[in-house]
Amino acid sequence: MKDIHTTCEWGKGERWGDAETETGMSRLSLSDTDKQARDWFHETTTALGCKVHVDAMGNQFAVRPGLNNDAAPTYAGSHLDTQPTGGRYDGILGVTAAVEMLRVLNDNWVETAYPTAVVNWTNEEGARFAKSMTASGVWSGDIPLEDAHNLKSVIPANDTATMRSELERIGYLGEVPCNWEASPMAAHFELHIEQGPILEAENRRIGVVQGVQSYKWFTVTVRGRDSHTGATSFQHRADALLTASKMILASHKIASKHGALASTGILNLKPGSTNTVPGFVQFSLDIRAPQDDTVNTIEADCKSAFSALAAGEDVLNIQAGCTPSSRQCTVDWHTDFVSPATHFHDDCIASVQAAAQDLCGSGEVSGRDIGSWGKLMTSGAGHDSVYANKRCPASMIFVPCRDGVSHNPSEYSSPEQCADGANVLLGAVVRYDKL
Amino acid sequence: MKDIHTTCEWGKGERWGDAETETGMSRLSLSDTDKQARDWFHETTTALGCKVHVDAMGNQFAVRPGLNNDAAPTYAGSHLDTQPTGGRYDGILGVTAAVEMLRVLNDNWVETAYPTAVVNWTNEEGARFAKSMTASGVWSGDIPLEDAHNLKSVIPANDTATMRSELERIGYLGEVPCNWEASPMAAHFELHIEQGPILEAENRRIGVVQGVQSYKWFTVTVRGRDSHTGATSFQHRADALLTASKMILASHKIASKHGALASTGILNLKPGSTNTVPGFVQFSLDIRAPQDDTVNTIEADCKSAFSALAAGEDVLNIQAGCTPSSRQCTVDWHTDFVSPATHFHDDCIASVQAAAQDLCGSGEVSGRDIGSWGKLMTSGAGHDSVYANKRCPASMIFVPCRDGVSHNPSEYSSPEQCADGANVLLGAVVRYDKL
Ligand SMILES: NC(=O)NCCC(=O)O
Ligand SMILES: NC(=O)NCCC(=O)O
Repeated sequence: MKDIHTTCEWGKGERWGDAETETGMSRLSLSDTDKQARDWFHETTTALGCKVHVDAMGNQFAVRPGLNNDAAPTYAGSHLDTQPTGGRYDGILGVTAAVEMLRVLNDNWVETAYPTAVVNWTNEEGARFAKSMTASGVWSGDIPLEDAHNLKSVIPANDTATMRSELERIGYLGEVPCNWEASPMAAHFELHIEQGPILEAENRRIGVVQGVQSYKWFTVTVRGRDSHTGATSFQHRADALLTASKMILASHKIASKHGALASTGILNLKPGSTNTVPGFVQFSLDIRAPQDDTVNTIEADCKSAFSALAAGEDVLNIQAGCTPSSRQCTVDWHTDFVSPATHFHDDCIASVQAAAQDLCGSGEVSGRDIGSWGKLMTSGAGHDSVYANKRCPASMIFVPCRDGVSHNPSEYSSPEQCADGANVLLGAVVRYDKL
Repeated sequence: MKDIHTTCEWGKGERWGDAETETGMSRLSLSDTDKQARDWFHETTTALGCKVHVDAMGNQFAVRPGLNNDAAPTYAGSHLDTQPTGGRYDGILGVTAAVEMLRVLNDNWVETAYPTAVVNWTNEEGARFAKSMTASGVWSGDIPLEDAHNLKSVIPANDTATMRSELERIGYLGEVPCNWEASPMAAHFELHIEQGPILEAENRRIGVVQGVQSYKWFTVTVRGRDSHTGATSFQHRADALLTASKMILASHKIASKHGALASTGILNLKPGSTNTVPGFVQFSLDIRAPQDDTVNTIEADCKSAFSALAAGEDVLNIQAGCTPSSRQCTVDWHTDFVSPATHFHDDCIASVQAAAQDLCGSGEVSGRDIGSWGKLMTSGAGHDSVYANKRCPASMIFVPCRDGVSHNPSEYSSPEQCADGANVLLGAVVRYDKL
């Protein structure tokens, strides 16, 4: 808990409560405050006896030697970047619990069979550079290094900084190539807050994560015509914002039909004047579902609905009551990011489950008994473990968070819930090392 | 035409054609380029023999003496500021034609009975400071000076410059009080492009403007809850952007029902990340109709529809097919600007009509005959003449613009159309002076 709140001094966000630590976080990837958190990671893990290296995406790897150092380390880790209005636990808990693991191993003179290690991945959030899990994706070979280096900051809109220029600026463009061969892993375990309401609602302490749902990110561009709001009749308009509004509503209706999710988090328009009908709108679209097929179907349905709406046709009853226009808008799609459904590795899932059983399975307080302490679950959010899982066995540990809220300053897990997760993380790594 | 294109070197906007002058304008009020245009106005009118003064809102008044200088001058004028993606005619034509009037009077040794004058009003567009016709509104006593001085720049969002700080910065915070007593007018005539399609469609040369429709501007704020796009079900969301999209659509449907206009030109959201459901959206709403009553009815209808949408109720069939949420958004309204329907003064309308008759009424080229050359019309857009009309007789002259397009870089009126307007402006001022 001390590490969490120490590192959260760098990049403090909005206040949501009265207590000293009741503020959120705003530590965008590769910002000055992200550099401060990285420096802390480097110094702390070095002081704990690790050998630390940085790769070409700024990923930080801290390795604690084992008895036999010819094999790859078993890793615990997550990320230290946050959303612009994020909280103190998303990612941060995973890294600080992994550092705590190093301390517990040291304090107890534990010699693991093989090395153990901690990783801090760059730009997991995809908030500042709009590809989530960018740097673990480069490490796994799924995202080309150059594509990642050239990603432009989207906060604020039209910022010209790239991942590469920011890595250089803050001194984290490492010399080690970014790939799974240069920084090999025997396994990857990640502790994370659930970011959803299930564990809390069902009063369970630990989520044993079997996989992650499928998702895709798009940038949708709508072009119309700038015109005067007072002198242009509805019939003569090509209103890019009205059309984008219909599209956002349509994506919600389409996703609802499939019991899935579609969301828009970014919207920029031009020119941005009260009395000019906007001729240009660009917005993000994030589509998610447990199955890849469902995501693809929603994408296809949205594509045809958006085209129809741009052309002024009635779909999903959205046009009913609108004034038809003799001018059309155009719509273009760009795919920013694709993360297919992920199934974690059985050995890692078993290690997590066994470690959780060790912690919660007997001698329970508050009447929890074996079986009801935890839950096998699928993550709604993406995590670096998705890409890690492509190159080594991986799994994750979830702990409950209040109200299921994340990507929000008031995101909160209690010290006890964090400690539960840290204990299971340690247990899973030690078990896997033995395996 | 030379003055138009000379002054349009300051604040050049987007290119839309190949010819040298085929670019739009982006000369926001009180910007550095607006200062350049103002300096041109001062030097040019001074060189033409006028006495020029600047008031506390930066309005520039250039007075050409008459035979009897004990009475107020008859004014021609408009504004030199533009939209962020504006054209070369909106406002600019009105000022340059008024300056041309001074030249014609001088060149022909015309001695008017009373003084004639030209005015350049500050921030007519309301683009940078979101109250249109701000400085004529202060002059007429309708907008308190302090309110106007404290208006914040809305481009870019969160700019901290105010009208007062910008007036000071560019050296146009004049010492003359801004009001109709310190800078009295006998009458106010304004030449403007129509900004709509009627004159062109009906093949008429001159619009004799009898009045301006009613309009109101609002800022609508929607608050929800930041949350994770992948881990938060639709049921648990308070999605401020989805809700704002529904509101924009609802305002369009409500205005359609009344044969009126509702438009959103500005939309800002927070936090602005692909994978965070926005918890905050703020957008502009511009409602217009010929009658004040209609504007008020649309405002009331939108207020109840927006509240219902924020609460998740079905209105105008917008919610059908959406997933109901157990969380609500809140909505707040702020009224930024009110401009009731305006009826210009009969004497001024008659002067314009007579001057237009002089120009077009006989000896017509291209087969136009008396009666078909012009049209009595109401303006869809607001103009400084609205406020001028509160303190002196006023009217306006419209000329056609291509495709009826304005607030767009490709806004265009031909040199012949501009000359028609300038001739009628001169004629109307001279006639009124005699009156
Ligand atoms: N865990 C998390 O917030 N990851 C960000 C990537 C995503 O949007 O799912
Ligand atoms: N003429 C013009 O564009 N005026 C701006 C005020 C308005 O929005 O009507």
